[in-house]
Formats: sequence, C-alpha cells, structure tokens
Amino acid sequence: MLTTRFAILTLIFALITVNLFSQLNNIYSIVPKPFSLNTNGERFAITNQLRVSVTGHPDHRIYANASRFVRRMAERTGIFLDEQGFVTAKDTNSASSVLIVIKRPGKLQLREDESYFIQINSKQVQVRAETDLGAMHALETLMQLVSADSSGYYLPGLTINDKPRFTWRGLLLDPALHFLPVNVIKRTLDGMAAVKLNVLHLTLCNDQGFRFESKIFPRLQQLASDGNFYTQEQIKDIVNYASERGIRVVPEVVVPAHTTAILVAYPELATLKKEYTLQRYFGVFDPVLDPTNEKVYTFLSKLFTEVAGLFPDQVFHIGGDENTGKDWNNSRQIRTYMRANGIDSAAALQTLFNKKILPVITKNKKTMMGWDEIFQPGLPEDVIIQSWRGKQAFYESVKAGHDAVLSNGYYIDLIQPASYHYLNDPQPDDADISAKQAQHILGGEATMWGEHVTPETVDSRIWPRTAAIAERLWSEKDVRDVDDMYRRLDIVSLQLEQLGLCHLSFKNTMLRRLCNGYDTRALQALVDVIEPLKIYERNQGDTMYTIFSPYTKLADVATPDQAVPRIFTKQVDDFLQTGDSTLETEIKQQLLKWQNNHIAFLTLLRNSPVLQEAEPLSLHLSEIAATALEAIDLIQRHETAGKQWVQQKEMLLETAKEQGGRCELQVVAPIQKLVNAVSGDAETSSTESTWLVSTRQ
Amino acid sequence: MLTTRFAILTLIFALITVNLFSQLNNIYSIVPKPFSLNTNGERFAITNQLRVSVTGHPDHRIYANASRFVRRMAERTGIFLDEQGFVTAKDTNSASSVLIVIKRPGKLQLREDESYFIQINSKQVQVRAETDLGAMHALETLMQLVSADSSGYYLPGLTINDKPRFTWRGLLLDPALHFLPVNVIKRTLDGMAAVKLNVLHLTLCNDQGFRFESKIFPRLQQLASDGNFYTQEQIKDIVNYASERGIRVVPEVVVPAHTTAILVAYPELATLKKEYTLQRYFGVFDPVLDPTNEKVYTFLSKLFTEVAGLFPDQVFHIGGDENTGKDWNNSRQIRTYMRANGIDSAAALQTLFNKKILPVITKNKKTMMGWDEIFQPGLPEDVIIQSWRGKQAFYESVKAGHDAVLSNGYYIDLIQPASYHYLNDPQPDDADISAKQAQHILGGEATMWGEHVTPETVDSRIWPRTAAIAERLWSEKDVRDVDDMYRRLDIVSLQLEQLGLCHLSFKNTMLRRLCNGYDTRALQALVDVIEPLKIYERNQGDTMYTIFSPYTKLADVATPDQAVPRIFTKQVDDFLQTGDSTLETEIKQQLLKWQNNHIAFLTLLRNSPVLQEAEPLSLHLSEIAATALEAIDLIQRHETAGKQWVQQKEMLLETAKEQGGRCELQVVAPIQKLVNAVSGDAETSSTESTWLVSTRQ
Repeated sequence: MLTTRFAILTLIFALITVNLFSQLNNIYSIVPKPFSLNTNGERFAITNQLRVSVTGHPDHRIYANASRFVRRMAERTGIFLDEQGFVTAKDTNSASSVLIVIKRPGKLQLREDESYFIQINSKQVQVRAETDLGAMHALETLMQLVSADSSGYYLPGLTINDKPRFTWRGLLLDPALHFLPVNVIKRTLDGMAAVKLNVLHLTLCNDQGFRFESKIFPRLQQLASDGNFYTQEQIKDIVNYASERGIRVVPEVVVPAHTTAILVAYPELATLKKEYTLQRYFGVFDPVLDPTNEKVYTFLSKLFTEVAGLFPDQVFHIGGDENTGKDWNNSRQIRTYMRANGIDSAAALQTLFNKKILPVITKNKKTMMGWDEIFQPGLPEDVIIQSWRGKQAFYESVKAGHDAVLSNGYYIDLIQPASYHYLNDPQPDDADISAKQAQHILGGEATMWGEHVTPETVDSRIWPRTAAIAERLWSEKDVRDVDDMYRRLDIVSLQLEQLGLCHLSFKNTMLRRLCNGYDTRALQALVDVIEPLKIYERNQGDTMYTIFSPYTKLADVATPDQAVPRIFTKQVDDFLQTGDSTLETEIKQQLLKWQNNHIAFLTLLRNSPVLQEAEPLSLHLSEIAATALEAIDLIQRHETAGKQWVQQKEMLLETAKEQGGRCELQVVAPIQKLVNAVSGDAETSSTESTWLVSTRQ
Repeated sequence: MLTTRFAILTLIFALITVNLFSQLNNIYSIVPKPFSLNTNGERFAITNQLRVSVTGHPDHRIYANASRFVRRMAERTGIFLDEQGFVTAKDTNSASSVLIVIKRPGKLQLREDESYFIQINSKQVQVRAETDLGAMHALETLMQLVSADSSGYYLPGLTINDKPRFTWRGLLLDPALHFLPVNVIKRTLDGMAAVKLNVLHLTLCNDQGFRFESKIFPRLQQLASDGNFYTQEQIKDIVNYASERGIRVVPEVVVPAHTTAILVAYPELATLKKEYTLQRYFGVFDPVLDPTNEKVYTFLSKLFTEVAGLFPDQVFHIGGDENTGKDWNNSRQIRTYMRANGIDSAAALQTLFNKKILPVITKNKKTMMGWDEIFQPGLPEDVIIQSWRGKQAFYESVKAGHDAVLSNGYYIDLIQPASYHYLNDPQPDDADISAKQAQHILGGEATMWGEHVTPETVDSRIWPRTAAIAERLWSEKDVRDVDDMYRRLDIVSLQLEQLGLCHLSFKNTMLRRLCNGYDTRALQALVDVIEPLKIYERNQGDTMYTIFSPYTKLADVATPDQAVPRIFTKQVDDFLQTGDSTLETEIKQQLLKWQNNHIAFLTLLRNSPVLQEAEPLSLHLSEIAATALEAIDLIQRHETAGKQWVQQKEMLLETAKEQGGRCELQVVAPIQKLVNAVSGDAETSSTESTWLVSTRQ
C-alpha cells in the first residue's frame, strides 16, 4: 500500500535525521575549540528562571553584552526571559543561575588577557575571567553549547579553561572597492564576536574611492566617493559597536600608491601632474603620491590626525602595497631627487616616505602598520608588518624584530576551501625562528578584499570559512583535524545565520532571480557542484569587471568550498577502497540526478538567458555523470574499459574542467578516479585498492 | 529502467515548469495595474548598448534614479552595462535607446502630478512625464516589464498611459514599538517605490520608547529610548533616501496619550504626577499629558518645531488616538478645569488640547493630521483625519470638509489575506458622499504596527500583501479580480525580494533555527498551512508579549495569507463541482503528505522543544488529512458516511480549529467541505453539485 511505503520511507528518513541531530547536540561543537574541556555528566536546565548577574570589576560593556546574551538565549530557545530586560550593575546576586565574575576591566589592546573559565553544573553556570573581554568570549561559548532534547533546553555540565593562542585574530573588510553599508559591517562584527575574532581592519580608501567623511578635506568624499562613504558619526557608531563586542578597529589609509581617489580630490599631491578620475577597474595602477613634495606630508599629517581621532585603536595602517614605481621612474624631478640623495630604488624611496610619515603616526601616539612591501632595510623596528606575499617575508620581518601579522594563506577572496586556510599555521614546526623571535608573531588576519563582493554576497565569501581561520588563530597548534573542523563548521554556520548573516539565505534569493521564478531545483543542483574560479582567475579573459558590473550571476550564487563535491569525493574514495554496496547505491543515485539534471536546466534556460554561460557546465556535468555510471557498471561487472572508451572519456573529463560563467565543476576529480579504476592502466592500477584489483580476478 | 522513469518524470516536471514560466513573462503582470496598456507586437531588445538619456526640466533626483535603473537592469539580466556608470545631466541624446522626457520638476506634495506615458518599440523606450515623479514610476513599470526568452532579454512593445487614482498611497512604519534600524527603513522605501507607494508615515514615539534624537530635550533619547533611536543625521538620511524615490515622509509624535516615553523624561508634563518607566507591554495605557499645564504647550511647541525642521513634508501627525481619559477623570485639577470651562467630556478636552497645539503646527507652515479620535465637534477643517476605526467615521470626516486618509481595512498587522485588503475601497459605489465631498478622500495607508514584528520578520508582514493595497490606491476602481491579483502578486514578490526585502528568504533561516538543523521539510510542510492568529488574538491568553519577548517562534515563521491552503481550497471546490480525476489525484497526494508528516515532525520535536507548541497543530493536520482521505474514498465509492463517523469527524474538525503556538490551521474549512459532501445531511446536500449527487445514484 502506498501508505505503508510512505511510512517506511519516512521512518528511514527519521532514523537518519535522529542520527544527524545527535551530532548537532554534541558538546564538542565549539568553534574555536577551547583549550581544555571536561564534562561532569550534569546538566543545567534553561528555563524562564534564568537570570544573569555580574560581580567583580568589569568594564561597562559587559552589561550590554550580557543583556544581548539573555535576548539571544530567548530567541534560541523560545523561552520568555522577559523578566530580565537588561543586565545591569544592580544584578550582583552571586546565587544567580548565571554568574559572571570579572577581575578587572579589559583594554582593547595587543596582548590583553582574553582568557576565561566556565563551570556548568545542575545549579549554576559560572563564568570567571580576568577581564570582561574573556567573559564575553565565555558567553559566546555558552551560546554554542546550548543543547536540547525532549526534556527541554540545557547546557551540558562541564568545565572549560580557554585562552587564545594568538592576540591578533583579524578580519579585513574592504569598503573601498565595493562599498559596504553600516549594517553589513555590524552584522560582520557580530559574526566575528561569535568565533572570538578580535580585530576588524577597515580599508578607508583605494583607487576606486574614498570612504571616509573628512571635515578638513571635504573634497575627498565630495569628489572621490560617488556618494558612498561613512560619515564621522557612522565611524563612531562602528567603532563603538565593535568595542562593545571586544573588537579593535584598525583603520587603513593606503599610501603612497593605491591613491587615485585622493588624487581625484587633490591632484597637486600626485607624482604625475594631471587630472585624475576614479578608477573603475580592479587591479594595480600607477597613480602615486609625490614623496619629494612637502605638501604631501602636510596633507597626510592632517588627514592621519583626523582619522586617528576617530579610531581609538593603537594601530594605524598606512598600506604601502603594490607601488608599481612607474610614475616615480618617469618623473625627472624624482629621478633627480633620488640621485641627489643616494636613493637607488623605488623601494628605498618608499622607505624614506614611510620614515617621513612615521612621526605623524607616533605624534598621535599610534603604532604604524603596513603590508610587507614596506619591510625594507631602514624601516624602524616598531612598525608592524602584515605579510601577504609569502611566509618567507613573514619570518624575515619577525626575525628583524617587527611585530607581524600573517595574511598569506588567509586570503578568503581567493575562493579556496576552509581546509586550506585551516591548515595554514602562523608558526608551523618547521618555521626557522627562535622562541624569542616567535613572540613577535601577533597572529593572523583573513582578508575579504572587495573586488567581487557586494552587500548581497559578501557574507557568503566570509562565512563559514573564516570560522576555521578563527580557530587556527585561537586554538592550540595541534588542533588540525580537518574532518572534525568541517563537522563543526556546519553547525557554526547555522549559529552565524542566527546573528543575521546571509551566507546561507542569500542563495535562494539569487537562485530565484536567476531562474526568474520559484522553482530553482535544476539550477541549485548545478550550483551545488561548482565554485567560482579561484585565486585571480575570475577577473580575466573576456570578463573584466568594473565597479558597475552586476554581481548577480552564476559566479555570485556559486560559493566557495562546496560540501556536495567534498562529500562525493570521499564517498568515491571509500567506495574504491572497499566496494561497499550502500556507498555504490548512494553514488549512483547522485550520478543519476546529475545525469538527468540537464533537461530541467535547459527548460530554465529558455527564460533565463543569463544562465547561458552555465549551459556548458550543466552539459558537462551530465556527460561526466553518465561516464561515471558507465565506469561503475564496468567495476560491477569486473571488467576494464576499451582503449577507445578511455580516450573518449579522458577528452570529456578534460573539457569538463573548462570554466563556464567564471566557475568550474568540482566533481571532475572523483569521476576521473572512477575512470582510472577501469582504465586498466598499469600506472594507475598500482595504486588501486586490493578490493578493486580483486574485482577483476 | 530507472533512467527512463526519471526522464519521463523530468519531462512532466519540465512541461509544468514551461507553463509556469509563460505566465511569469506575461506582460500583464504589472502591479499596480496601469490605467491603460496597448501592445504593438514589437519588442525592444535589452543589450549592452542600452543607454539612458534625460531631456526636459527634471528635478535632479531623476539622475540618481535613472542610474539605479541601469544598475538594476544589469543585475536583472546579467548584462554588463558598465559603459554608463551614471546617468547625468550630460546624457541628453534624444536618440538614446531609453529616453526620459520630463516637463517640470515634481514637488513632494499632495495632488502633485505623478502620471507617465511609456512607449516601447523595437528602436526605443520612451518615457514621457509631466514630472520626474511620474518618470520614476515609469522606470519601476519598466523593471516589471523585463521579459526573456531564448533569444534574450527584452521589453515588450506597448504603450502605457498611467496615473494614480489617489494621491496619498501610504505605509506606516512603527519603530516606536519595535525599533527598526535605518537599513530596514531604506529597503522598505525601495519596496514602496517599486509599487508606487508615495507616503511613509513614521511613528517617532509611543509608550514603549522615544526614537528621535532631540538636541533641545536630550533626556528623551537619553532616558526613554533604551539606546534605540534615530540620530538627526539618520533622520536626514532617511528623509533624503525617501525623497530621492519620490516618497514623502510624514512624522508622527503622538499626543496627548501614548506618551509614557515622553513622561519618563519629563514627568512634570503628566496629568498624574509620579515617576514613569517605559512601558514594556503592548496595548492602551493611561499616562497622558496634562492639557491644563502651559508647560506642556511650551514643550510641544519646541519639540514639534525641532521635528518639523527635520521633516520637510507639509503634514505633521500628532496622533491623538486611544486616550483612555482615566487619568484626566481621576485628576481633581482637571475635573475642576473642565467644570470651569464648560468642557463635558474627555473628547472635548482633547479637542481643546488639539486646538491649542494647532498654532504650533501652522506656525511651522505645516498641516496637522491625526487619528479619527480627533474628529470631534470644534476641530478646524484644515486638519487631516486618518480613519482606523471604521468607514462611517471616515465618510463623516470627509463630509465635514476634512481631507481624509483611510487605514481601516488596511491594517496589515492583523494578518488578514491580501484579498481582504484588496477589495477594501476608500470610495465604494455605496459610499454616501457627493462627488465634491469625495475630493477630500486623499487615499489610504497600510499600517505596519510594530507590536509583533522585528527587523527579521517585518518584511514578511508587509510584503507582498501591501502591493495589493498599493494597487487598490493607484489603479482604477473596477480593477478587482482577486485571482489575477494573486497571480501578479506572486511575480511581484520575487521582484521585491531583488530589492533586498527578506519576506521570502527570512523563512528558511527561521525554520533552520527552529529545527536546529538543515533539514526543515517536516516543519515547512506544517508552516505552509498555518497562519498566525488574526486581528488581536495573538497577544492574549497565556502569552502576553513584552518588548523583550522572542519573535523567533512558530507564529513568527508562519506568515499571513498562505498560498497552499488557498490553492487547496480551490482544488477541493473544483473537485466537488466536477469530480475531475486529476484534481482528485493531486488532492489525495497533498492529503497523504499531510497525513504522514506528523512522524517526521515528531522527530524534529525531539531536539527542538520550542516546537512543542506546534505539536497539536501537526497532529490535527495529520488527523483531518486522514479524515479527508476517508471522505474522498467514500465519494469514490458513491457512499455516504455513517452517523457515528460524521459525529467523530465533526469533533476532530472542531478540535483542529484550536490554536497552537498562537497559530491556526488554514485547511480545516476545505476538509470540512469534503466531510459535508459525504455526511448525507439534507441541508448540505441541497448545495451539492450535480456531479456529487449523481455519484450517489
């Protein structure tokens, strides 16, 4: 009977779901993984009696944070915790169900104590921390620990001791290239706090625009922002929002290159004297400040002082990257100057420039920071170096006595998987530096360069991968289990969404736009197995983006680090090792779906010309899926394929690697393995599993 | 073979999809429906050669608007229109592919000309309008007309003449009850512009909080806002954003009741002298200003003048609703005053109060507006009345010479279907008013009162239903086809989403939170057939909300005006009329899904206690679905049911009407019809279809 069949299927589905849910309630799901965790078998029941108290000597920020904790707990559990609208300095009852004990106010500065201790038993949740910064980290951990079963919501009984490995755990946001409204910055800060990131690096200008309201040099936002900039009130709002969450905000005003925007407003500061217009493309450009012009230093002195006044952080970033040196070399005046002063290279001239702006920074009681191009002979030691071009430069600057932050390997704009970033350690065992030198390693920073992100897509490029980087920078060096990281990342991804981040929800909206309708299944099936081109491949070929280009196409709905190909790859690997028949069924089901998806995709295509660039990907997916099914068939029949078949399929697979709509299929490699398994090639068969070989006996 | 079956199913799916897509490209999908539309069979191809020019004498706002039009066109079609970054006053080429001709700058005021003419042929898209306001409406119409087929994107050849029926087409947003950040206001304004709404009514305060930064009376935001208020810079930003889209912003500072927030800051202005704290509940409360205290008028004079300075609109709303009169009646001083001045009721005293604040408004060159409680004898004619309590009061105020805006019947917070609001006409044929009096009907306003909405859910309560109200207020009176309205509403809903509105995308996020996982199907199936309690039922019983309550539960993921019950009801009606076997199959498939859903729901429940309140709904859905299947079975076998069966099922159906989690099942009525059809009751069988009766012969 139809009913019975449905019931059985539902039961099977239910069993699978139960299994999934036990994982979701696993207490070992915290990201970043804490220093130590010990369970005690009890549980603290979350009820409408939950009250939070704070004792000790905290910074005032703990109260708003604890109030938000209560609200988030209510939103998460549906329990009305309305009796405690706010946690205030009056809430000091040490018998409170949730007690936070803080020794002293925390300072938003390098190397501040962010440690915390949590103890949960059936009676109380206790948080103890040196500073409110640690206490706020504890509250985030508690949010991640919320569990449930049929008896209700609870926190599992345990004790946690936790502290970060590195003091600088940053994320760079880049409103210079694509402007990001204040609400996007704020929700990003909420996400950062959830995974204990503590530095927001904000690029305030670049060739494409100046994003800061200057009252001293108003031509900057009037002429060089297209109306997209933060007012001073908004800057204060952002800085305050971050501070309330224990996050430092480091401003960057990049000089002397990447200054087209500044030169649109004040061309007299340029090396090459002409009229400048905002750069609409993305890349590296020649406009550069004139380091021999005293007016430049006067200007920067005033501007930097103005910016420094609005950003209370100790660190002031002056960029310093990607100076082509071309306008300097083409300037007779500058060549003359260099000869007269014994400066033999653009790099040396830039070092002179950096040394001349350093006093501006120090007079504002700030520490200067720049990209690794500024790490040159003669650069004073008390400049922080941010390394992006390689580990070698990173360690050299550390050895030379500079505090340093690693971004190389954390370039999340390059669309690489979380595992790649996760395994990228700022201080691996083979790093050739002493323990003393290693003290200069402040930590690392993920960089969300703004070339190809908009407010609609930026969350999907940051999350959840950046949570893996957050763990790399917080947790101990030996925490490197990639599978477990992905398991926990899936859970954290949902928690991040609850903070208002759109990395999951944006996708259906974009799919609907691309399909011009509600039924997006055929496109979703394709999007699940593609990723945007990686590294710098996207902005090439016949598609050169400008700031006006639409980011609502295939490469924008596609996201990095897709799960379906990752899971499929593992299934194929396991199947080729073991020949497991359940795996075989699952793999074949998936392949059938892909094989048959193209028909439905073609129907979508009829009314969505924007999807034409995806057609080759969809066709290739169908073809290589059919190929894989044939390969599995051969494996089942203990046969190897004919030479012609192999040749044909090799060509298919090669074609299937081609990009479409600036994206690539991610399932070619596992299907290649299936083809290899039946190709009868001596070379590949030597790596085959015993099982595979045995099938052909 | 599995493959063939899949292929056939896919083909069937494809055919259904094609049918759906032809509907989506129907040129008669504009909301609001234009005054007249005539096709000419041509088409204008949208290519990367698209350029927009503007001639005539427009207000500057057309340029930013036209620039956004180009960007939106690029995002919609994926075509790179980067060559035209901005439309500027230099773009005046009358041979441009898109030409906008504007006679004169439009003023953001009542009764301004908002008409437009569109002509589309293969060579050019021409927009002609008296004002830029009309031209901007035309651009929104053009965005809705974007069509596509395999040859590419195009605009269908046609001419449109269009103009609004009413001049006041408003939406009230209420950040007083639940604060709404600036980005929520802005995306709402984008949605309003898309459906040609032109007034945003903003409530700046209520008992729960004061949401406006006063520099004259800073205690207001310091003591009475919980930190949630708009700075003056933000107000200017909102007003400017609206103005750029042809939308007027009408501020409301409600007096003399609903003033708890003001009295928290300035208790000396109260009737009842005591200390006030912010009201945390929702409802009608007693705190009220003292109309006999001159200080009140001094205060309001300064405050109103400050607010008026930031809101350039002609109209200033002073609220005036829901004054219980209790504190007045309990005040000996006021009773004495009333006796001494011959004032015999609270309403009369409030009229005196209104007359005393009117000069403040008029000295600021504004027109006063208030809710219909202020429509009392003695109220000057030049006060605009906003009617919410009924049509009678509405027509009375119109007859008395007041300009009037209708909100009764447009209370979108009451969770009624779009059809209800759509058929609610400000000037129906049976309205007992003359043509001259009818000139006082300015139009209408949808009200999004903030009791039960948050930034996460507010879009789903406004959209897409408010688009139906927008049509009621713009299009001609005889445009009343409900089915066609719903068809077009489905399409417009997708377009609204593309503007950043979250009414569709919020749901999956909330489902995932409630399920604490990725698989939400069982909950979605239930949510598809429930709606939050309507009218004022939600905030009753054992669930009294405060501003601290979580809005992340069943009644928040559930949305008004569900499509699945509506479609199912129609299917059942049609089936009972015709006995069509395809319908029968579809209905049974749906019923089987509902019947079997409860098992999967129970699995979700095991780890999501927050869903316990939904369990009865899920169980009842399963039970009445089983009931309906039994009824259809009886119909198939040409039998009537036994008396006991009928009694049993009537009880089941009655129970199934009960609320769960402040929601109700919406499929009880159609299933009741199926039970009636086999109940053999003489009364019901008289209304049966010939087909049904014939089945039993």
